[in-house]
Parts: sequence; C-alpha cells; structure tokens
Amino acid sequence: MSDSTRPALHESPIPGLFVVDLDLRGDNRGWFKENWQREKMLPIGLPDFGPVQNNVSFNDEVGTTRGIHAEPWDKFVSVVHGRVFGAWVDLREGSSFGTVFTVEIGPETAVFVPRGVGNAYQTLEPNTVYSYLVNDHWSPDAGAKYTFLNLADETAAIDWPIPLDDAVLSDKDRAHPRLAEVRPMPARKT
Amino acid sequence: MSDSTRPALHESPIPGLFVVDLDLRGDNRGWFKENWQREKMLPIGLPDFGPVQNNVSFNDEVGTTRGIHAEPWDKFVSVVHGRVFGAWVDLREGSSFGTVFTVEIGPETAVFVPRGVGNAYQTLEPNTVYSYLVNDHWSPDAGAKYTFLNLADETAAIDWPIPLDDAVLSDKDRAHPRLAEVRPMPARKT
Ligand SMILES: Cc1cn([C@H]2C[C@H](O)[C@@H](COP(=O)(O)OP(=O)(O)O[C@H]3O[C@H](CO)[C@@H](O)[C@H](O)[C@H]3O)O2)c(=O)[nH]c1=O
Ligand SMILES: Cc1cn([C@H]2C[C@H](O)[C@@H](COP(=O)(O)OP(=O)(O)O[C@H]3O[C@H](CO)[C@@H](O)[C@H](O)[C@H]3O)O2)c(=O)[nH]c1=O
Repeated sequence: MSDSTRPALHESPIPGLFVVDLDLRGDNRGWFKENWQREKMLPIGLPDFGPVQNNVSFNDEVGTTRGIHAEPWDKFVSVVHGRVFGAWVDLREGSSFGTVFTVEIGPETAVFVPRGVGNAYQTLEPNTVYSYLVNDHWSPDAGAKYTFLNLADETAAIDWPIPLDDAVLSDKDRAHPRLAEVRPMPARKT
Repeated sequence: MSDSTRPALHESPIPGLFVVDLDLRGDNRGWFKENWQREKMLPIGLPDFGPVQNNVSFNDEVGTTRGIHAEPWDKFVSVVHGRVFGAWVDLREGSSFGTVFTVEIGPETAVFVPRGVGNAYQTLEPNTVYSYLVNDHWSPDAGAKYTFLNLADETAAIDWPIPLDDAVLSDKDRAHPRLAEVRPMPARKT
C-alpha cells in the first residue's frame, strides 16, 4: 500500500475540530492529493460526513479576511492554492463557548469544522484559493440562521498576521457583533 | 432568490457527459462559487452523485498533460485556478465507443464525466489547480481496473494546444495503448 496516501488527524482545543495532515505526492508534473477520502478518514477519527455542496472562494490580495461565520452544518475546509491563516471560535452554547484556535494552512493541511464553530481565514499569499465541502445546502434564507462574530472581537483577540485595518473585508463582515452580543448556537438535535 | 447562484447544464456528443456553467460571484475580495451543489444540479439534469473522495492535482507548467484515464466511477471535474484544455474519449463498450469531446475549462465551468469515459487535460496556464469529486474510492488495486488510452492516439486525434512533444507527461501516461488495443469498459451493472 506504499502507493496510497495516508492522512493523519490532530485534535484542537475546540471539541470536534480536527486538523488533518494530507499527503502531497509530488512528481515531474506537480503534485496530487486526496483532499478528502471518506474511507481513509473515518478510521482515523473524522466523523462520517456526506457532502452535498463544494464551495470555492478566490482571493486576489494578501490580507483578504473572511469571517467569522458559524453555520448550521459541518465543513471540511482546505486550501488548494496559496496559504491562509485560519481562525476558529467556538460559538456553540456550553462550556467551550468562546474557545479560539488558529493554524496556518496550505495545500498539505485540511480542517474539519463542526457545526456551530465560527470559521474565518486571512490570506497570506495572492491568488489564494480556498475550497470546502459542507453537509447541508446553503440558501439565501440559510444565511439568516448563521451565527456571526466580529473579526476584531477583543475577547477572542485573534492575532491576525495582517492588521485588520490593512485587510480586505466585505461590508457584511465589518458589521458583525462582539462576543457579548452573540447568541450561542443551540446544540445539534440528535 | 437573486442572491443565489444558478448553474446551467449543456449536453455533449458523449452520452451522459455534461458541461455545467457555474456562477462566479465577484466582489472586492475576489470571487465565490458553488462548485458543486446537489440540490440545484439534480433538477437541471445532473445524475444523483454522492461523492466519497475529492482529489486535487497541481500542475507547475503550461502544457502539463494527464490522461487518458477511464475509471470505474463517475467524476465531477473542475478547475479552481488557471485554465485547461479538457479532452474526453468514450471508452465504454457500445456504439458511442471512440467518441471524442473537448472543451476549454476555467473556474466558471465544470464537467460531469460518467464512468467509463476517458478523462484527460492539458494546462493552459502555469500553477493550474484541477479538483474533482468521485463517487467511489480509489486504491492502488482500483488503478488496475482503469481503462487507458494513449494521449497521442491517431484515431481519437485530439488537437492538443501544446504539441505532446513539448508537453510534461508522466512515464505511465506515455505507455498507454492505442484505441485498437483498448478493451472497452463493460456497461455499468444495474
Ligand atoms: C487517483 C489517485 C492517485 N493516487 C496517487 C497515485 C500516484 O502516486 C499519485 C498520482 O496519481 P496519477 O494516477 O499518476 O495521477 P493523474 O495522472 O493525475 O491521474 C489521476 O487524475 C486524473 C484526473 O486528473 C484521473 O483521470 C485519473 O484517473 C487519476 O488517476 O497519486 C492516490 O493516492 N489516490 C488517488 O485517488
Ligand atoms: C455560502 C454561499 C454564498 N453564496 C453567495 C452569496 C454571496 O453573493 C456570495 C459570497 O458569499 P459570502 O457569504 O459573502 O462569502 P464568504 O464571506 O466567503 O463566506 C462564505 O464562506 C465562508 C468560508 O470561506 C463560510 O464560513 C461562510 O459561512 C460562507 O458564507 O456567494 C452562494 O451563492 N452560495 C453559498 O453557498
């Protein structure tokens, strides 16, 4: 099986948020990776995850910053070109509310983000492409069910490599509330 | 629903191979696309497709050429950075065996490739990133069940933008047989 890629899983301070090391197989053409592989990622501890949508965002400039968005579905996030500084804040109700985790990710890393954990990233290279799989469908109405946190929140105090004053943001993301105003996302119905 | 992306589907000369126009939503940060969205793509005619693996290949140089590989599963292929000349040859047993289809694809286009249709591409820009979803798991043994065709096959006569003599290929892809030697892939068991 030496011809087969082998991912490895790491825990994080946020319960259920996992970092996955991917195997980039280089050759004369470039590289190949299994970005997500259900059969190999289940036994290493990733929850069973049936994606119904694959989203891609392209960012022209270094310092483009998107977030902080907690959605009512799980996400498997990865970078397919360039690098990002990834930041996550637990926005689920319960004792882990407010827990922060950050990690730099390039094509060799993926992150599994459970439902209710706020997702954000800042690009560290131009032309960075971010790709993610989700296990429920977005719709304009679904956006209303998101929980948002301001990227500049003083309690989460994320140490952005590029100061937010010099960063490219959407107007929507500039308007999100501080942690004290966030209504925690209720636990998943089981 | 003006805030929601709308894909459009086109048929091709190869039965079951569809070209999908994706909606790239640009803003001050770059763009966003729903690369694959089950709920929207079913009603426009894409077969129901439950991916279990997402593969990404990165290509340094213009003219990198990969193929022609027919696999025992369906593929939803897309380009997330750069551009490619995509080429497909029907290698399923039956009357469409040998049918060729080519189209240039960038981030705004995706192609659904049914099981048994040979897949190939040549990069038209440096640092091109190709991403695809498949509905069965690859393994080193599964590779043995592929059907291959030589990129230079004289019958398929694919008009590569960059002549193959100047292209970057894997040694494996240089060794594939001509169409007359190909054993057609048997029809899907239903
Ligand atoms: C397809 C696949 C390959 N591999 C390994 C085997 C090799 O060490 C390395 C590159 O595989 P290759 O088969 O040479 O990659 P490539 O020529 O791009 O072809 C792949 O990608 C093509 C599309 O780009 C498909 O049409 C082929 O069927 C598929 O095999 O990755 C995996 O670890 N997992 C996989 O799923
Ligand atoms: C999420 C989503 C958005 N859209 C549309 C709405 C907008 O016109 C455009 C960009 O959406 P925005 O929400 O501003 O994109 P962005 O700030 O990158 O945020 C998205 O991507 C983030 C990860 O990059 C997620 O954490 C967010 O929940 C998700 O909404 O795309 C879709 O058409 N489909 C979608 O699934």
